[in-house]
Amino acid sequence: MKEFELIRRYFTEQVIKRKDVVIGIGDDCAIVSPSERQNIAIATDTLVAGVHFPEGTSARAIGHKAIAVNLSDLAAMGAEPTWISLAITMPEADLAWIEAFCQGVFELCEFYNVQLIGGDTTRGPLSITVTAQGLIPKDRHLTRSGAKSGDWIYVTGEIGDAALALKHVFGEVVVADEFLDDVRKSLDFPKPRVLAGQALREYATAAIDLSDGLIADIGHICKASKVGANIVLEDLPTSNALRETVGTEQAYELALAGGDDYELLFTVSENNRVGMETALANTGNIITCIGQINGSEKISTTLNSKSVSINAKSYEHFANNQNSKD
Amino acid sequence: MKEFELIRRYFTEQVIKRKDVVIGIGDDCAIVSPSERQNIAIATDTLVAGVHFPEGTSARAIGHKAIAVNLSDLAAMGAEPTWISLAITMPEADLAWIEAFCQGVFELCEFYNVQLIGGDTTRGPLSITVTAQGLIPKDRHLTRSGAKSGDWIYVTGEIGDAALALKHVFGEVVVADEFLDDVRKSLDFPKPRVLAGQALREYATAAIDLSDGLIADIGHICKASKVGANIVLEDLPTSNALRETVGTEQAYELALAGGDDYELLFTVSENNRVGMETALANTGNIITCIGQINGSEKISTTLNSKSVSINAKSYEHFANNQNSKD
Repeated sequence: MKEFELIRRYFTEQVIKRKDVVIGIGDDCAIVSPSERQNIAIATDTLVAGVHFPEGTSARAIGHKAIAVNLSDLAAMGAEPTWISLAITMPEADLAWIEAFCQGVFELCEFYNVQLIGGDTTRGPLSITVTAQGLIPKDRHLTRSGAKSGDWIYVTGEIGDAALALKHVFGEVVVADEFLDDVRKSLDFPKPRVLAGQALREYATAAIDLSDGLIADIGHICKASKVGANIVLEDLPTSNALRETVGTEQAYELALAGGDDYELLFTVSENNRVGMETALANTGNIITCIGQINGSEKISTTLNSKSVSINAKSYEHFANNQNSKD
Repeated sequence: MKEFELIRRYFTEQVIKRKDVVIGIGDDCAIVSPSERQNIAIATDTLVAGVHFPEGTSARAIGHKAIAVNLSDLAAMGAEPTWISLAITMPEADLAWIEAFCQGVFELCEFYNVQLIGGDTTRGPLSITVTAQGLIPKDRHLTRSGAKSGDWIYVTGEIGDAALALKHVFGEVVVADEFLDDVRKSLDFPKPRVLAGQALREYATAAIDLSDGLIADIGHICKASKVGANIVLEDLPTSNALRETVGTEQAYELALAGGDDYELLFTVSENNRVGMETALANTGNIITCIGQINGSEKISTTLNSKSVSINAKSYEHFANNQNSKD
């Protein structure tokens, strides 16, 4: 099985060499030396072929997404990403595939100064498990549990396009050519909001990344914080592509329930709104206020100030699977 | 998919609550707070059904082994295990299976005071990826690269029984009833040499855990240390079961090439032999001197002081797979 040896070489040919990595790939373990006064955040996510990405997804996109979804978890806690362990199981040693996969992995790692420190390469049905670690000043991490009645609810970027892309892949809608590239990128190349997460340490009362869908994820915050929330539908940040393809009403549904957005959803007190908006603008992130926390312990939605009920059951991955969000 | 929710409950019902875990399972990331002056060792290993364990292996054994092989990697660097992330992909939410699996996981975690801090549960072909972390005083880790000509080569425990068990499973040999339980345990419930690894920090010049087989693994040490080694066949620690089942000659072959032993293989200078032997005896580990490092950059074997050639190609997992040993 010399091919698997060759695969490993791709993983050692990375550009990033962090000073806090004492031993990287090649021994029984990696050894890292975190700076004092920092805690470590750890996230693990698995992508399974046919469950978390459609068959036929490009290797580069799979590599990007495997890293991005984990960096997104780190961002939701306010951590600065540092080290990645990558376990890849694949049916055969396909060197062209692995080269493109590594391109997707290393593009993100280089952008965020993250070093691949180890992992495992095994034969079997295609799946990728990444454990990503990051540093965070002690007692400065964001959680889901700090939202208070009266806090404002914000989201980064635009939401619903990843769900639209999936509908296109499965032939349920047709996205026009002029939009297709951007829409497909939302699904295949999600942008983890790493800098936004770090900026939010100073301001947010709670944060989560949008993987299950807005309604499910604001539900996670409300449950952990023992509060309720109202979402203002007409304020949801959706793309022209989404609204023009499916109309306003279904755009709301996909934005609320679609999942796979990997934007940050967070809450801020009235007093911290201006400071947070300035700080986030400095990171280059666009944010939108989409509602407010209340004491009801329920999730409600309004449209033009009138209560509306929505068809937004919790997102399930398209192969009827569900992520654990740990 | 309420069943996958139920599965997650099993993982939160653990006994171990470490003081250095700030946030465990349940948010986007775990947060840990390592003590100052400690580095962190990180190991990742994947077990794939039909590749790393035979179909029909008990769920408890799979849980045990998924943790044990990673703790074994930590032991080989001299680290004290602390935190585990567990990604499990399974075809359906089988609660009886997961309960037995968790029993195997938590038995080891409780014994070594290791806390499960997060992970992911997904649907797909059965496979388990564990990332295990441990603490180690700065600059005190063991590597593969410190062996020097003249150092003595030692191994913990007995070797070759796991390979014998696999041959039994596949009907290539018949292990007598009186031996079968012990032999099967060597394969299904390997004991990571955690305390031995920590004791060796003071004494060993190089260390590795035996997963690929003795010849392959001493080869890893020799390559990293730029030295050679001679192994004395009659000194290899093999069980009565192994010798009585396959005879002396094949016992040597399985001990040299079998793999999956998860014993520690390490080198010690002449000056440190007595101190090391005392320290290891205090940890309750049996060790055997099986040869010596030399300057040849080759691996040789002798039997009764005569050079012999051996049929010991590097171990490959039984489904023609190979582990990456990172």
